[in-house]
Amino acid sequence: MIRELLKYANVPGAISFGGGTPDPDTFPRQELSQIAAEIVEKEYKYTLQYSVTEGDPELVKQILLLLEKIYGLHGLSAENILITVGSQQALELVGKVLIDPGDYVMVGDPEYLGALSAYRMREPQFVVVNFEEDGPDMQMVQQRIEELEESGQIRNLKFIYIVSNFQNPSGITTSVEKRKALLEIAQRYDLMIVEDDPYGVLRFEGEHLPSIMKLGGIERVILLNTFSKILCPGLRIGIVVADKPIIRKLVLAKQGTDLCSPSLTMRLAARYLERYDVLQQIKPSIELYRQKKEAMIKALEKNFGDIKGAKWTNPDGGLFIWFTLPELYNTMEMFEFAEKNKVFYIPGEAFRPNDQPSSSMRMSFCLPPIEKIYEGVERLRDAFEKYRASKGL
Amino acid sequence: MIRELLKYANVPGAISFGGGTPDPDTFPRQELSQIAAEIVEKEYKYTLQYSVTEGDPELVKQILLLLEKIYGLHGLSAENILITVGSQQALELVGKVLIDPGDYVMVGDPEYLGALSAYRMREPQFVVVNFEEDGPDMQMVQQRIEELEESGQIRNLKFIYIVSNFQNPSGITTSVEKRKALLEIAQRYDLMIVEDDPYGVLRFEGEHLPSIMKLGGIERVILLNTFSKILCPGLRIGIVVADKPIIRKLVLAKQGTDLCSPSLTMRLAARYLERYDVLQQIKPSIELYRQKKEAMIKALEKNFGDIKGAKWTNPDGGLFIWFTLPELYNTMEMFEFAEKNKVFYIPGEAFRPNDQPSSSMRMSFCLPPIEKIYEGVERLRDAFEKYRASKGL
Repeated sequence: MIRELLKYANVPGAISFGGGTPDPDTFPRQELSQIAAEIVEKEYKYTLQYSVTEGDPELVKQILLLLEKIYGLHGLSAENILITVGSQQALELVGKVLIDPGDYVMVGDPEYLGALSAYRMREPQFVVVNFEEDGPDMQMVQQRIEELEESGQIRNLKFIYIVSNFQNPSGITTSVEKRKALLEIAQRYDLMIVEDDPYGVLRFEGEHLPSIMKLGGIERVILLNTFSKILCPGLRIGIVVADKPIIRKLVLAKQGTDLCSPSLTMRLAARYLERYDVLQQIKPSIELYRQKKEAMIKALEKNFGDIKGAKWTNPDGGLFIWFTLPELYNTMEMFEFAEKNKVFYIPGEAFRPNDQPSSSMRMSFCLPPIEKIYEGVERLRDAFEKYRASKGL
Repeated sequence: MIRELLKYANVPGAISFGGGTPDPDTFPRQELSQIAAEIVEKEYKYTLQYSVTEGDPELVKQILLLLEKIYGLHGLSAENILITVGSQQALELVGKVLIDPGDYVMVGDPEYLGALSAYRMREPQFVVVNFEEDGPDMQMVQQRIEELEESGQIRNLKFIYIVSNFQNPSGITTSVEKRKALLEIAQRYDLMIVEDDPYGVLRFEGEHLPSIMKLGGIERVILLNTFSKILCPGLRIGIVVADKPIIRKLVLAKQGTDLCSPSLTMRLAARYLERYDVLQQIKPSIELYRQKKEAMIKALEKNFGDIKGAKWTNPDGGLFIWFTLPELYNTMEMFEFAEKNKVFYIPGEAFRPNDQPSSSMRMSFCLPPIEKIYEGVERLRDAFEKYRASKGL
């Protein structure tokens, strides 16, 4: 659906807030080019050959160091790590290993689309909880779980899925209190939590929050991450951090899925991490994202500040703002007006686990230059006016 | 299981006929190194960014040319191609799209293990037919299909899977007559054929046979291929060629599975194919494989020619010989004796769809140098003697 919607997002003059792809000019292409040449020639016995299913041992070493730096996770070993083809494969393998058809999985509304589509292949039933400004509505979480307990289905609730920082699509970060509350519930009902954190390192203001895995331990939490946002997406490197028995099951599932990830891209990331401090290298990108987010917030205030009931999130990091129109409006219906104005977004409907209509939209600020962000939001206001007129409101 | 078996296959002094990995010294590492440096630096907007799910359009172009050259397949377009993470992912996606739990899939005995494990994730029932010297036992194919028809299950038989050339593990090539007979049956019962052909270009003697797809057309056949044998496995590039509606379904399944393959490895293969004639480049490797196969055949004749009932295939290409001991023997039982002699193979049991014991083994001749092939087969005879004595035969 999204592909169909964004079909014209690349036409000349279009401004797209649709995609979540990073700006390619932020990628360290010279460094990667030099390393690529070197490892294909000198390490060809590894880089051009099959790898092991678990992933390049050299990259695993670097990932363990990075997990210490980013999350303060100590004492992990190689057997706690699986390297995947992007975090999409991590989501898919988690689904394969944990979900049987008919099982329950708790997800947010809105929720990351890639997770929904990965899990859907296993035909689960989604237990949906609303997202508030500081994370899941905990009363709703409790209520849903009690319902499952009463109907005797609680042991078929396989896990709670959550993007803990700067959620895609909402930009919402789950507070420490809610992280702890989720863990308490997981403990009480013996549930796993799948914590997905592709955006956590892209924090441009506020304080780093402890990950759910750091708070809850590896027995209770599976942590997913990716190099797509901190290095580049083209290498397709995702990471699963989990208890050893879970990793072993995921490795078996990956073996049947693609045998192993490409050796070349894994070793390329390994040597890059060895030589450069990736967390330092991305600082300019983070600063750029901060400026772009500020621009989008200002543009929204200027263009939609007068619309009663319109609101937007103001994330401390990541790539997305969740922009909500008054309830009467439907961002899927409005899309054709926006398209005519050559401005693109993703209607909120795409991120609802049960496909209901939505008055929200996902606005990605990472790719357009700052002046285009202002112009794009102006065009959006114009589209909104035309849509409003067409509805006679 | 294989991993466990081959755990000691790399100890000093060991000779392994176990793995099917090509010799890394045959990989064009200088050419690939140069291209890698170039495309990371100059084409970074593609190579380091997300690709489209269908695969790199530049590589698709090259694949269409290659399909003309190898198979004489004309008139295909980009919409007939999906690029996957190795052919293992192609097998897995085919399973996802075509098999529902409980469905039937026709496979050989023996059969390629990777296909069995990919399909098993969809919980099908295998309809198993014996492999003869020239392909599937066609009487058995007919009989199995009639059984399914009588029980009213024929419409749940989703496809016939077959490695048409130099099958892994048996080295057997299905004759043109049997290819046509399979197509007739597929036509009559409205079945798909999934033709897997990773080894076809590694023919070192005899005439190229028309592919089942060439004979039967794209409406009836899905063709799988890979760059792992003709270029190198580390790039993890597999190919599906199929009718457009099937490709569209596979693309959707891949989207949920890993979003897209790594852009870098796809573009690397594309530029390599553009600049070099891969079919010329692999000729020395093919000649080397031919010599190694000859050596193994000679060694088998010399060391096992006197064992009544022992037999082996003599393939015209590919990487494997299927070596069968007299019926009383079990190659899984014999394995410990071989292991003590530091010679390794894969017991035939691994390739039987229903896991029965087997008196056969897969012998891969691609990796050990020629003198090690002679020595390894001698060790194998010695292991056989010890095993025989232990059984009191």
